[in-house]
Amino acid sequence: MAASRTDRGRRSRVIDHTHDAAASSWVEGADEHGDFPVHNLPLGVFSREGGARRIGSAIGDYIVDLAGLAEAGLLPDALRPALGEQTLNALFRLDVVTRRALRHALFALLTHPARQDAVAPWLCPTQSVELHLPFAIGDYTDFYVGIHHATNIGKLFRPDNPLLPNYKHVPIGYHGRASSIRVSGAPVIRPKGQIKPPDADQPTYAPCRRLDYELELGIWIAGDHDLGQTIPIAAAWDRIAGISLLNDWSARDIQAWEYQPLGPFLSKSFLTTISPWVITAEALAPFRAAQPARPEGDPVPLPHLWDAQDQARGALSIELSVTLASAAMRAGGMAAQELSRSAADQAMYWTPAQIVTHHASNGCDLHTGDLLGTGTLSGPAPGSEGSLMEISQGGKQPAMLTSGEQRCFLEDGDELTLCARAMRGGYRAIGFGPCSGVIHPAR
Amino acid sequence: MAASRTDRGRRSRVIDHTHDAAASSWVEGADEHGDFPVHNLPLGVFSREGGARRIGSAIGDYIVDLAGLAEAGLLPDALRPALGEQTLNALFRLDVVTRRALRHALFALLTHPARQDAVAPWLCPTQSVELHLPFAIGDYTDFYVGIHHATNIGKLFRPDNPLLPNYKHVPIGYHGRASSIRVSGAPVIRPKGQIKPPDADQPTYAPCRRLDYELELGIWIAGDHDLGQTIPIAAAWDRIAGISLLNDWSARDIQAWEYQPLGPFLSKSFLTTISPWVITAEALAPFRAAQPARPEGDPVPLPHLWDAQDQARGALSIELSVTLASAAMRAGGMAAQELSRSAADQAMYWTPAQIVTHHASNGCDLHTGDLLGTGTLSGPAPGSEGSLMEISQGGKQPAMLTSGEQRCFLEDGDELTLCARAMRGGYRAIGFGPCSGVIHPAR
Repeated sequence: MAASRTDRGRRSRVIDHTHDAAASSWVEGADEHGDFPVHNLPLGVFSREGGARRIGSAIGDYIVDLAGLAEAGLLPDALRPALGEQTLNALFRLDVVTRRALRHALFALLTHPARQDAVAPWLCPTQSVELHLPFAIGDYTDFYVGIHHATNIGKLFRPDNPLLPNYKHVPIGYHGRASSIRVSGAPVIRPKGQIKPPDADQPTYAPCRRLDYELELGIWIAGDHDLGQTIPIAAAWDRIAGISLLNDWSARDIQAWEYQPLGPFLSKSFLTTISPWVITAEALAPFRAAQPARPEGDPVPLPHLWDAQDQARGALSIELSVTLASAAMRAGGMAAQELSRSAADQAMYWTPAQIVTHHASNGCDLHTGDLLGTGTLSGPAPGSEGSLMEISQGGKQPAMLTSGEQRCFLEDGDELTLCARAMRGGYRAIGFGPCSGVIHPAR
Repeated sequence: MAASRTDRGRRSRVIDHTHDAAASSWVEGADEHGDFPVHNLPLGVFSREGGARRIGSAIGDYIVDLAGLAEAGLLPDALRPALGEQTLNALFRLDVVTRRALRHALFALLTHPARQDAVAPWLCPTQSVELHLPFAIGDYTDFYVGIHHATNIGKLFRPDNPLLPNYKHVPIGYHGRASSIRVSGAPVIRPKGQIKPPDADQPTYAPCRRLDYELELGIWIAGDHDLGQTIPIAAAWDRIAGISLLNDWSARDIQAWEYQPLGPFLSKSFLTTISPWVITAEALAPFRAAQPARPEGDPVPLPHLWDAQDQARGALSIELSVTLASAAMRAGGMAAQELSRSAADQAMYWTPAQIVTHHASNGCDLHTGDLLGTGTLSGPAPGSEGSLMEISQGGKQPAMLTSGEQRCFLEDGDELTLCARAMRGGYRAIGFGPCSGVIHPAR
């Protein structure tokens, strides 16, 4: 029933009917679902009330219990131990062939009507469960590869020379805090911190007054390598488990005072929010696109960061958007307002493979469940900024909300949501599910 | 037999004979041991060849197997589950009273000759075992509280104004890489990375040519608190499990090119070495000293970082030293050469409690096994610099070795060792054990 497709390039020929746009699931509402048709099959961790954490996949408005399917003998035996864990770490330590077998088996179960009776007992409505961090996160690194964001922020300080000299040579990144990463829905408690306004003599310890979001993607690492080893760029994509949305909440006033000379610290570590579903590398395969050509005059990356195949299909055709609903808007039944819209492949100056290879280029060991933020993915034009710092030009030009309210930065009660959708002609679009948080007053 | 001592201050009266300078152990050589007399009793993790990891303590040149003592019923029953683990995390999640009970019970076993027959089977020579990371490290943060180091480094760039305006208000820190932390003895593989010498047009990807060490202490966190909570400074010391030595190996040329605007990244994440023994907060109690008064004109810390009790006894009387033995020196049987000597309480502008309280002041959650580096602990005078960058003044004035060799930065084959000793009049000094590494050529 499924059309086959050949994948060009150096990899062996792949026939993958799980991307057939005409494929249909017997799960009610799945074919029409904006984020989770059967072509997606994202992986995550959930629990029922009072129950233990279990590995599942999203299909329409339902979760399919993969641990249950494995116990019932409906999935390949080799997967059973990993699917019985409470995080995805063991699963993504398996080889990529075994992981692909999971996708194909699950696709078959959810598309063949004859399997409905066997599988249906393992479905439950998503709204009846709690979602958790998909991985035990070892280390979290945040990059800065959104060139329009770096340019927009740089312009606030250096209008004539916004990008520093290293930017087009090095995928800039820094270590982040792993312990304070939470899934969508976690309360965003306004942080307190040391703040020194430019006109003040002394800092104070006070609630942040310039609370912001940053629209990012989070790249999950699969597999492990030893300290002292590197990752050749041609092998880097195989170290990517999948991708989630990531909101790098930022306290701009704390950041301005603390960040010299060693970078952002407490201005970021109060919370990072991710969307709970891992959109797997296998699900994203059709949405890998050509990296936009570097503008004339930009330096050619050093050889260890350069791969023709990666340039041809190492970028991601993912549309991103940000919406805000203030407390007043929600109370008045008003829809959330879109603040911006951008595209990952247009925003990222470096590909995910270049990010991964750079990270390990000094011999740093990467492990399953490590998380790499891309940095803020703003577009080049007004309306595509990935943070309020950019939209309000450093707090000078407030955004106007449909409620008549204004925002230079986030206010208590605001609900901020990131969305993403992988799209490409000829393929069924897939979504990431929301990455949301409501701002709560400082304690 | 033991003298009692009263502990002044707000805490309740403590009678602690484990610090009695006259105490003696029946373990051969322990009383004369430079680092590990019975007054120390540091905690760590070891394995015998082919065996599983076990929790132990160092006494002289021996390790006492604490899991074994617990199994044999020689330690309080409440400790048995935690001592059966393969890291110290469970042990340091217990309340401080239970942890103190371990110290007192172990002290009694090792000092009372009548217990020798029961305990001796659980001793083995340290040189016959392998030592491992004491904790499963969640997050690693590196601070920058060594004011003379910050001044020395700042002077290389800004001779007239070495310290940035925030330095005396904020305990500056940044997130580090947890995965690449190893215990003393791990090979130091010279990292490769992007390097752009000032006179070059373009960067290259090449082995680091300015490899350096940084002399630091590593503070281990005990206990956990939830995201959104803070740690009052009066409670901060109770969140410190203990302290190890920490070498923040640094690739100065990679750092110079990558670090703007978000701080050091791959210049640090190739390796961080710690000494394997956790010198516990209980063992360090007699060596808590007054924090040196801030120089006239320095700002008073904000109230949440200020506690009179912490100023009176929150600093650490620990003497630090660095030695280097080149390959030629070791081949010729020459002793390692001391490069510098400094003192923690004189070097640290902020106390450990201030560091911990600051870290959580934005609501960041800290967990058992988190590691906080102090930053490089240089003294104010020549001969007390905690890095070669300082000794050689940025690579301009090489250190002269007794072998006739010169060093601006580390060369392949060099063995670099950090040492520390807690000392105070009236108390038996205790040591940390070495934190060493030999430089290996780049791969």
